[in-house]
Amino acid sequence: MISEKMKNYVKNSSAIRAMFEEGRKMASLYGEDKVYDFSLGNPNVPPPRGVENAVMEILKEEKGSFIHGYMNNSGFLDVREAVGEATNRKHGTAFSSDNIIMTVGAAGGLNVVLKTLLNPKDEVIVFAPFFGEYKSYVENYDGVLSIVSPDMETFCPNLIEFEEKINKKTKAVIMNSPNNPTGVVYSEELIKQLAKILKRKEEEYKTSIYLISDEPYRELVYDGIEAPYLTKYYRNTVIVYSFSKALSIPGERIGYLVFPKELDDFQEIVDAANVATRILGFVNAPSLFQKVVAKCMNEKTDISYYDKNRQVLYEGLTKMGLTCVKPQGAFYLFVKSPDPDEKNFCQRAKKYHILMVPGSSFSCPGYVRIAYCVAYETIINALPKFEELIKEYK
Amino acid sequence: MISEKMKNYVKNSSAIRAMFEEGRKMASLYGEDKVYDFSLGNPNVPPPRGVENAVMEILKEEKGSFIHGYMNNSGFLDVREAVGEATNRKHGTAFSSDNIIMTVGAAGGLNVVLKTLLNPKDEVIVFAPFFGEYKSYVENYDGVLSIVSPDMETFCPNLIEFEEKINKKTKAVIMNSPNNPTGVVYSEELIKQLAKILKRKEEEYKTSIYLISDEPYRELVYDGIEAPYLTKYYRNTVIVYSFSKALSIPGERIGYLVFPKELDDFQEIVDAANVATRILGFVNAPSLFQKVVAKCMNEKTDISYYDKNRQVLYEGLTKMGLTCVKPQGAFYLFVKSPDPDEKNFCQRAKKYHILMVPGSSFSCPGYVRIAYCVAYETIINALPKFEELIKEYK
Repeated sequence: MISEKMKNYVKNSSAIRAMFEEGRKMASLYGEDKVYDFSLGNPNVPPPRGVENAVMEILKEEKGSFIHGYMNNSGFLDVREAVGEATNRKHGTAFSSDNIIMTVGAAGGLNVVLKTLLNPKDEVIVFAPFFGEYKSYVENYDGVLSIVSPDMETFCPNLIEFEEKINKKTKAVIMNSPNNPTGVVYSEELIKQLAKILKRKEEEYKTSIYLISDEPYRELVYDGIEAPYLTKYYRNTVIVYSFSKALSIPGERIGYLVFPKELDDFQEIVDAANVATRILGFVNAPSLFQKVVAKCMNEKTDISYYDKNRQVLYEGLTKMGLTCVKPQGAFYLFVKSPDPDEKNFCQRAKKYHILMVPGSSFSCPGYVRIAYCVAYETIINALPKFEELIKEYK
Repeated sequence: MISEKMKNYVKNSSAIRAMFEEGRKMASLYGEDKVYDFSLGNPNVPPPRGVENAVMEILKEEKGSFIHGYMNNSGFLDVREAVGEATNRKHGTAFSSDNIIMTVGAAGGLNVVLKTLLNPKDEVIVFAPFFGEYKSYVENYDGVLSIVSPDMETFCPNLIEFEEKINKKTKAVIMNSPNNPTGVVYSEELIKQLAKILKRKEEEYKTSIYLISDEPYRELVYDGIEAPYLTKYYRNTVIVYSFSKALSIPGERIGYLVFPKELDDFQEIVDAANVATRILGFVNAPSLFQKVVAKCMNEKTDISYYDKNRQVLYEGLTKMGLTCVKPQGAFYLFVKSPDPDEKNFCQRAKKYHILMVPGSSFSCPGYVRIAYCVAYETIINALPKFEELIKEYK
């Protein structure tokens, strides 16, 4: 009796779910320390101390009926101000509370934006490999996903194919840098070229094409680089931010949207996004954690922890002959599968208690995603197992 | 550039939003204590002490990366167990964690259920007057709202019209008792009759019709009565619960769904509801507050506070000649407007700094909703103003 649409989603999601359950079963059979679960993007680094301190302070300072009560659908005014100011300090922008809507994480934010913008059959361009949920989010509003095929050399957007994919039904483009699943951070030069193409196509078709920048991994960058802030390069940019990875609080579901004043139909979009927040059933971002993140805008998770994992795993696996773009952000390696069918590779890996996600979940078969947001020991202990696994292919 | 659907929602929602803003403006012009804002269902009673204690305990007892981390989309297992057990103790049911999905409030829960069940053009029956958001929620999934007209005598469902409205496209019925906006609590006898009709019609059309019970006000009942627990009367019942009013924490967005094993296609529905939780962008109910409510299943907001407001306001207004069903639940009075156009009445009331919501927002024109979840003083000070207002109609 469930809806026809949901039947497909349930069928397709059972693979990942089965893996998760298998991982849990393995752990109970062989012990947690004998299972190398690289399948989930659940941060292993604890939240910075400031998060707990903030909770304590807020409960002491504010009245419960206020701190746990309703506010505007867009969030507490002071929180939106704090978010705007922190963004301005970091990126030299000029946002105020008017530009910010607090959201139930980035997933909530993306749904709000897509509900706001999409008419049925509107196209949304994504670059493979991409976070598989984008497909469901776009289809929630009867939009059509248009996939630019992956550039296996760099895992950066293929701009020639991108330009070809834009047509008068193109309503939005979703970008995700630092990228899940590759960890690649797009360069300023690439952003500039992409922006140029978008402007040209907007003029050609007399439309507005919104660039939606999904940025849960913005703070997770290594080697001293920084991900360019997209509103500076392209007028019609909406930022979708999450504190999930920046503060290691993914379960709390807290993030925000940035709508720059320069957006075509700025006020109409903000008004609609507010209403979308309400009618999609979010109503508002969780209230206590709105206040918490406002106090933690300068807090940062311990990047050095992930960085160490990244170095050791990258070096370990490439020494074994596996190939992979060295990631400069997020906490994933996207590794070429030695088996032409990467699902087989993932299946074989389970023999060694190694869990990875097949690239086909990111519209990029032939690769596997390895999430290294795990304990350092897990990586050290997994490396010999990887070696055994890879020997099977030699 | 916003979507066509959203244009209508933005237009329609501007009325309530304008009122909210007018209220804020009035408060800054005349002072908070000179404005009688009965427009919002934002609980005025602070959360029970147990809520803050639970937060403190949890932060002390559990690791941050666990308490703020991801878990299954359905929520923490121990939390779902606690919810099931508490429900069993209170209502003599037999639920386990398998029957529970934690949600982003009741609004989130309703969206998950409707996404799970509805195919385009499926009909969902509601009883006027009803919470206006139901319309948006149903339309989010291309369902069609079928409205049973209000019974102005009792504000209980008109079962004759209900039966006539059921057809083979009827997929669900939304019930809301204690009711927003009337405060009426439906009797056991009425539930039994309604269940009988549903069973008869399921057999007639060889379909499953799901009864969705929206219960944010379950704990807010007076005069020693209790709202019947619907799963005991009708097999295909889904409960949508929220802690927003029970614990005065509406901003935290925490509630749950109950799927009894007796549901047609139980496992398929639960699996789909899990996936819906994810793809709608909720991902999971906020993690810390999942743990908080699990510790607060026996906590209760101070009902006596609302009860006092209810008595004083009901007696005050009826003495002035206004008519209204005496509510036994929630924190609203639904009062017959002395002006045939209740929007005029609400408009005039603003002269006296009284804010109320027109009944047309609940598909029941000619009435106004007065939310008495306000300070007692607000009611005492507002009564003479009501008197002046009503004099205009004599």
